Amino acid sequence: MKIIVDAFGGDNAPAEIIKGAIAATQEREDLQIILTGPSSQIHNCVKMNSLDLGDIEVRDAKSIIPVDVDPFKIRHEYNESSMAIGLKMLAEDEGDAFVSAGSTGAVVVGANLFVKRIKGVRKPAIGTIVPGKKGPVLLMDCGANDNCSPDVLNFFGLMGSIYMEKVMGVENPKVGLANIGVEPNKGTDLQRGAYEVMEKNDKINFMGNCEVRDILFNAADVVIADGFTGNIILKTMEGVAKMLLGSLKDIYLSSAVTKLSYLGVRKGMHGLKNQFDTKKIGGAPLIGINKPVIKAHGSSNAEAMKNAIFQAASYAESGAIDVIRDSIPSKRERISPEANTNES
Amino acid sequence: MKIIVDAFGGDNAPAEIIKGAIAATQEREDLQIILTGPSSQIHNCVKMNSLDLGDIEVRDAKSIIPVDVDPFKIRHEYNESSMAIGLKMLAEDEGDAFVSAGSTGAVVVGANLFVKRIKGVRKPAIGTIVPGKKGPVLLMDCGANDNCSPDVLNFFGLMGSIYMEKVMGVENPKVGLANIGVEPNKGTDLQRGAYEVMEKNDKINFMGNCEVRDILFNAADVVIADGFTGNIILKTMEGVAKMLLGSLKDIYLSSAVTKLSYLGVRKGMHGLKNQFDTKKIGGAPLIGINKPVIKAHGSSNAEAMKNAIFQAASYAESGAIDVIRDSIPSKRERISPEANTNES
Repeated sequence: MKIIVDAFGGDNAPAEIIKGAIAATQEREDLQIILTGPSSQIHNCVKMNSLDLGDIEVRDAKSIIPVDVDPFKIRHEYNESSMAIGLKMLAEDEGDAFVSAGSTGAVVVGANLFVKRIKGVRKPAIGTIVPGKKGPVLLMDCGANDNCSPDVLNFFGLMGSIYMEKVMGVENPKVGLANIGVEPNKGTDLQRGAYEVMEKNDKINFMGNCEVRDILFNAADVVIADGFTGNIILKTMEGVAKMLLGSLKDIYLSSAVTKLSYLGVRKGMHGLKNQFDTKKIGGAPLIGINKPVIKAHGSSNAEAMKNAIFQAASYAESGAIDVIRDSIPSKRERISPEANTNES
Repeated sequence: MKIIVDAFGGDNAPAEIIKGAIAATQEREDLQIILTGPSSQIHNCVKMNSLDLGDIEVRDAKSIIPVDVDPFKIRHEYNESSMAIGLKMLAEDEGDAFVSAGSTGAVVVGANLFVKRIKGVRKPAIGTIVPGKKGPVLLMDCGANDNCSPDVLNFFGLMGSIYMEKVMGVENPKVGLANIGVEPNKGTDLQRGAYEVMEKNDKINFMGNCEVRDILFNAADVVIADGFTGNIILKTMEGVAKMLLGSLKDIYLSSAVTKLSYLGVRKGMHGLKNQFDTKKIGGAPLIGINKPVIKAHGSSNAEAMKNAIFQAASYAESGAIDVIRDSIPSKRERISPEANTNES
């Protein structure tokens, strides 16, 4: 199992990326890693941090694509960046999966361009695992696409369902449409249209609308939304968790009594904090691309990168992509007959 | 100050509504309340619960509009419901404000129909106060409208800014556009279009995009979104808070040691729980309607209704509606010159 890792994506690159890669190979001896990026910078970083690359390979790349440039620049100006090189290597089977903590937009554009979509997939989706009370929940799309049609959401439902089953081991996952109420007429035209087509899709276990309030209570295993809404849900969750856990910390630090009280519940609190720790969750797969591409959180440290690398390996090992490929109806037998005219 | 209260809106009607009304008049002697609904049922409830209406009046209504019927039925079939009667009384100046915990859709349709919008307002918005770390934040629209144009969002910004200033006492409130990132090109065409017009609106203190992650950190005083997105943000916040606070409770109840630990932090925890308690926050104003209409949370108990009634009084006393009316440009001097052609 060979994982290609962009050593220069993310706020804490390259040191934390390299450390994460090293940790991954130490924990899983079957993993081989190839780091991409300006090799002199990689080797300098290794030296400065007294690290040992071991069997980890380095593939040179001329440049690094910054997080704030137009993502489409990966096509030409940053065609030789650590991210682009990594994606091209994946496309040419020089590895089984690719991981980057760099610009989400650039990963999406680059993956579409270099690795390409599974035949029949119109739009790939970023799937994020969120920590439900009774287990993980897959939320998608978390930002790969601005505009989606009902038919595209239906596709997300199918792909997400397969991912949840094959990679996360959830049998017959419940697929829900993120919405503001359970009745079929709730939401906008997009949700109402998606409800209609998803209801008729016998390849998924469609439960109807999933109230966003109930996502973390595992009302659904897979929650489907357009890219903007999915991203809004995810970031709102992050903000509330950060605020509440921060307020908790303030309460505990406020006096000697409260600090003492913390000792009694330290284990439970630690568990709660871990549950919401994006570092432990690992990265987000770009589902619908021909080969496994994982976008790790921009602020990933070594532990987060290690977990993102493990997730990439799981995705590659699961065979989920082959199942998605086989599940996609040919042009003649579309999931919804009006698909070609419904495209937005 | 006379507040009209729908005694039959909400899950806990009529008992909790009536109790809330009584509590409100006891705390504020200047408040007069008129309850609407089938008077025999109201008087029965008072008797069964050993309550004392005091000076609270009762206006009879023939029916009650259920929460799950088509909201448009308030126009004809439920034209004489407790909600419709209350709104019509407000329209005819028989009170200064109206409060209902009933169907949100019906309140919106009914308010638009009977009380009508402030002249020049195309769409009213439900504004919800959320508990930011450093003080209240106004989020709107939380569900009154499906589809919004950039110009409508701009209007929400203006109305919300005035509400925040006049009713909540925040000087020169920062108005932000709910989004997934701070750069002006983030989000969908709607956010990008709204950013453009709001940036040119010199009647508001527009800060640009407000990352939804930062809403509870008071990045903005007023956060603007279309009705679906606003509702999604609100319900996601409610879900995460409920889940985390519930998990906290589980941690504390798990053993004798943890229960003991709770005593040390009880005050702080209580404060945290209160912060997120929708009962304490009160109801949501429907901003843009000619007179004060407050939608209380569907699950409101007596305390929540009491606070919603106080909020209705504050809204009426503030003069905010007059300021909104005076701030709206005439047809010739639109905030954005393309307004008439941009309408979606």
